[in-house]
Amino acid sequence: MEKETLKFTPRTDLAIEIGALLKEEHDDDNYEIEGVQIDTNTQPVFKKTHITILNEAGASAMGKPVGHYITLESQELKENDPEAHKKIIQEVSETIKSLLPKTKETLNVLVVGLGNRQATPDTLGPYVTDKVLVTRHIAQFVPEAIDESVCHLSSIAPSVMGLTGVETSEIVKGVASHIKPDCIIAIDALGSRSASRINTTIQISNTGISPGAGIGNKRKQLNEETVGCPVIAIGVPTVVDAATLVNDTMDCLIENMMMETDNNALLNMLNDLGQQEKYSLIQEVITPVMGNLFVTPKDIDEVIVYLGNVIANAINIAVHPGITINDVNKYRY
Amino acid sequence: MEKETLKFTPRTDLAIEIGALLKEEHDDDNYEIEGVQIDTNTQPVFKKTHITILNEAGASAMGKPVGHYITLESQELKENDPEAHKKIIQEVSETIKSLLPKTKETLNVLVVGLGNRQATPDTLGPYVTDKVLVTRHIAQFVPEAIDESVCHLSSIAPSVMGLTGVETSEIVKGVASHIKPDCIIAIDALGSRSASRINTTIQISNTGISPGAGIGNKRKQLNEETVGCPVIAIGVPTVVDAATLVNDTMDCLIENMMMETDNNALLNMLNDLGQQEKYSLIQEVITPVMGNLFVTPKDIDEVIVYLGNVIANAINIAVHPGITINDVNKYRY
Amino acid sequence: MEKETLKFTPRTDLAIEIGALLKEEHDDDNYEIEGVQIDTNTQPVFKKTHITILNEAGASAMGKPVGHYITLESQELKENDPEAHKKIIQEVSETIKSLLPKTKETLNVLVVGLGNRQATPDTLGPYVTDKVLVTRHIAQFVPEAIDESVCHLSSIAPSVMGLTGVETSEIVKGVASHIKPDCIIAIDALGSRSASRINTTIQISNTGISPGAGIGNKRKQLNEETVGCPVIAIGVPTVVDAATLVNDTMDCLIENMMMETDNNALLNMLNDLGQQEKYSLIQEVITPVMGNLFVTPKDIDEVIVYLGNVIANAINIAVHPGITINDVNKYRY
Amino acid sequence: MEKETLKFTPRTDLAIEIGALLKEEHDDDNYEIEGVQIDTNTQPVFKKTHITILNEAGASAMGKPVGHYITLESQELKENDPEAHKKIIQEVSETIKSLLPKTKETLNVLVVGLGNRQATPDTLGPYVTDKVLVTRHIAQFVPEAIDESVCHLSSIAPSVMGLTGVETSEIVKGVASHIKPDCIIAIDALGSRSASRINTTIQISNTGISPGAGIGNKRKQLNEETVGCPVIAIGVPTVVDAATLVNDTMDCLIENMMMETDNNALLNMLNDLGQQEKYSLIQEVITPVMGNLFVTPKDIDEVIVYLGNVIANAINIAVHPGITINDVNKYRY
Repeated sequence: MEKETLKFTPRTDLAIEIGALLKEEHDDDNYEIEGVQIDTNTQPVFKKTHITILNEAGASAMGKPVGHYITLESQELKENDPEAHKKIIQEVSETIKSLLPKTKETLNVLVVGLGNRQATPDTLGPYVTDKVLVTRHIAQFVPEAIDESVCHLSSIAPSVMGLTGVETSEIVKGVASHIKPDCIIAIDALGSRSASRINTTIQISNTGISPGAGIGNKRKQLNEETVGCPVIAIGVPTVVDAATLVNDTMDCLIENMMMETDNNALLNMLNDLGQQEKYSLIQEVITPVMGNLFVTPKDIDEVIVYLGNVIANAINIAVHPGITINDVNKYRY
Repeated sequence: MEKETLKFTPRTDLAIEIGALLKEEHDDDNYEIEGVQIDTNTQPVFKKTHITILNEAGASAMGKPVGHYITLESQELKENDPEAHKKIIQEVSETIKSLLPKTKETLNVLVVGLGNRQATPDTLGPYVTDKVLVTRHIAQFVPEAIDESVCHLSSIAPSVMGLTGVETSEIVKGVASHIKPDCIIAIDALGSRSASRINTTIQISNTGISPGAGIGNKRKQLNEETVGCPVIAIGVPTVVDAATLVNDTMDCLIENMMMETDNNALLNMLNDLGQQEKYSLIQEVITPVMGNLFVTPKDIDEVIVYLGNVIANAINIAVHPGITINDVNKYRY
Repeated sequence: MEKETLKFTPRTDLAIEIGALLKEEHDDDNYEIEGVQIDTNTQPVFKKTHITILNEAGASAMGKPVGHYITLESQELKENDPEAHKKIIQEVSETIKSLLPKTKETLNVLVVGLGNRQATPDTLGPYVTDKVLVTRHIAQFVPEAIDESVCHLSSIAPSVMGLTGVETSEIVKGVASHIKPDCIIAIDALGSRSASRINTTIQISNTGISPGAGIGNKRKQLNEETVGCPVIAIGVPTVVDAATLVNDTMDCLIENMMMETDNNALLNMLNDLGQQEKYSLIQEVITPVMGNLFVTPKDIDEVIVYLGNVIANAINIAVHPGITINDVNKYRY
Repeated sequence: MEKETLKFTPRTDLAIEIGALLKEEHDDDNYEIEGVQIDTNTQPVFKKTHITILNEAGASAMGKPVGHYITLESQELKENDPEAHKKIIQEVSETIKSLLPKTKETLNVLVVGLGNRQATPDTLGPYVTDKVLVTRHIAQFVPEAIDESVCHLSSIAPSVMGLTGVETSEIVKGVASHIKPDCIIAIDALGSRSASRINTTIQISNTGISPGAGIGNKRKQLNEETVGCPVIAIGVPTVVDAATLVNDTMDCLIENMMMETDNNALLNMLNDLGQQEKYSLIQEVITPVMGNLFVTPKDIDEVIVYLGNVIANAINIAVHPGITINDVNKYRY
């Protein structure tokens, strides 16, 4: 088991899933991960899980840097339910606010919408970029037109390396070196290891993000070290890969069949494999044939609008002192 | 086995796949289906398979009406390869022409683009609708502006029942009852039972089509009986369902594992199941969790443009006497 | 002047503008048009004008059929102002309700979104079609899933004749002959004779509509006579034509210059022309060069969303007994 | 006249229009502008005008920096005419090639698509960005996958300041400081002073560009001084402003009326005004009412595709040694 943990490459960007994987591997639902603190809080509309990676031991166990990882889970996220969304906006905005630097009255915030505008499940980031209230140019060119009710917000959607030919982190770095923001808020669509998480989970962390990790390859990080200011990352899983889908289905299938058969070499063999090994096996088989397929809900166009509005509103409320929950959907640009 | 054939509900709209399924079930690659004639023709760029269902015996075996089902298979369909596309356009246009009614000099043709403009893999039909050369209104209102080089073409994209509240076949019937076309050409994105067919196969048939069969539920047919004129259907698989993906992957997986193990109850059990039964089993397991997921390539936006241009050009050349292969991409409206 | 009234071809679909034109021509702001009753009601957010054409004398004077023409004017319509929009939704929904047939408990309503999805200022109708709560198919196929809180609503976007080759009114007639609705609600983007009306005026009438009259040519009417049921038309001017723009600007220009010069043959000549003659003169000059140009605000994409949401919500509230102003933006499909 | 030249603010980005304006002001069609050389070349499909601003005298007269301004005019640009487009692509690619730095075998080129993806007439730049063959990331990460047939091309669409809050030139500068390109090719939709130029004129220059000058306000230049490498600018007028439209129409109108009247103070007054003064007068009148309106053809969506494909193909052929006119439309990414 030790060896396995060492070669463990998490195929998820969600800290909450890594925690669950570790518990699974130790076959112990109450397994405590050293150096990691987990608090949960269940509300009528959402469940909030706050994972704090306290030290290097925790970082090594989780495969993620020291810092805060807050997850909100809500089935209503993918429904057209403005009342529920208002509650989620409130919670997300408070979470963002708690992670913002406290150094200044009027922050200079750069919102970065990661992802590809040409592939629907990957448009979440650019959508948010289009919807936050952008003020930096007004502060700069017509300062008399705004007051302290707004911070200095700018926003870019740097597209993806396959379309630009440039590492996304380098575009952000280039722009940030000019703007010198106090804080970057980066939004990205993620992949998940569970179909049930698609469009129902928001993760907010203060440890940066890997552009394109969800859908493309893992690339250079956007974090305080690379861009020179704190990076708050907001991610929502909008796709699962084909291998995850097969893996989950096979698990269900085997479980169902288990009851009907006793002596079963394949079953035993599959069960002897760790989760990660089984997934790798499936991935190996699936890649040549279906490597560029993705799995997403039919109504993804519509759901991106809900998710994007939730996140854009939450950012507006968190960063602009004068905007409150009563202004939901009031500011689009 | 007889019983199984009776309850056989093909989960594919492609005659070529049904043929393959029947051969598989009889475990005989040379199995001849009674009442069905199959001709193949392999060209450098594409493979053409012409399945003729000759009589009721064939119709019953295939689960499809008597008529012609011509399939073109080409990997180049999903690539940006204008030269290959030109060859495919030529072949598709000749196939369409061979199925058109020969009753008149100047045909009155209604092109129907089935599918949902809001879900990318389902936009093929509406895309073609937008690209064929529409002339009927000119013939009607400014007849002096056109000559016999064009037929009278009109085109509609009736959307899907989930968005309109109206059975799609009824919208087409309503419009056709006014236009009184000599022939309808209906284009739809289909589902396939094989991931490798996605965006690489075009089926042209003269027996009508079920709007939404590929992605939604099976609905009322569009065919000569329901709309009062011959219906040429052009379909391209652009998605596979999640169950197909799992099924195909498990087949690979089991095949790989077979070599490593002898005594295996699950394997034996799965192998004892017919293809159709295994698929149904997987579907049963997958539906509650992932029922509304679809699986499609990442570059589907781009590929729909290739496919749509191939089909729209092929229709223009087939129906308008004065348009030839040299006019490819010249007419968009 | 009599002759002029005879050849008067109103270049506007707004009854309120025709009324104003007539007053202008009589050079009398209190001019009463025979057979026409005009009531106005000014509220904080909007101004409502209810024009009733009472009889044939009124119809002949106005160049429009006998019936009700209610206009709401509000600058807030084109702003991102959800509170103001709520008030407008309330008023529009009550106006629609007052025009609906009272024959049945559960109405069968067909919403028709006129216009071209490919030209932004003309997408208002299709946008509304996508946003109203469609229920007819559920009532038909899973009646147990719905109750009397919703009516039977279907919706189509028949596109424009230039793209389909079919007169739009004929598509609607074809579909209506199958659905047999109790009432059609048709939405269209209009042209206006005044740039200041763009995106700030909603007209609701119960006398039908000419598809494409605003942007293309005048075509066959959609009205009770042609489709067999009452037609409520909802129109918003989203463009002005180039000639209107020039006309209005020249008026300003001449007015400004008047003060500076006395003896002026051109001025006198232009002033001697009636409004309609001057417009025709400009149109004649402008058409060869700029005939296919349109004039629209830069933020039209955004404003169509506001307008479309206002109208879709108003329709939902007016026709579905169980939907109220508290459900605003809850139902998108 | 001297004074006028001093306060002359060209309301056009097209050197060819400035030249024409100067000739008009001197009322001399053969007027030679000091320090400016003009060569024209009329081909069957297009007319090419090569304006060279030779020195400071020319720069001051033209209000533009010393350098080359090549204009191609062709009515076929706005038509669906692939054969004509091929000839234009050839000429544009040769023009670009003549302006590229000759310093290296394998150039490092950054393509910058200026403009706003959310306003159709302004999407030309981003469209080209999406269509050029991007290779830089392949050269960097999988160098073995490419050979000397392609240069190192990257591309960005930095959006507009109103949406990002950041001066566009600063985003480009930030990215360029990382990529260190040998040359930037910037594409932008422009405004024109003549409705007849819309979508029929391409200007290629080697003196940089002002992002947003066409549609928004004049902003900081992108040129060798600001970004550290030569900037080739490719511009196409896709809109005229409302004032231009009115101005041009009034000119026609007055010309028509001139014949009918002799003694006319307004006409004399208007004719006494210089072109620039008349335009300013109209603009003053028009701005309060219609300041944010733009004028564009109805089929602008379609025409942007033609223009974008012409420019993207021309760039691919000019910069990638292995791509020729035979590969037209082969490379989209």
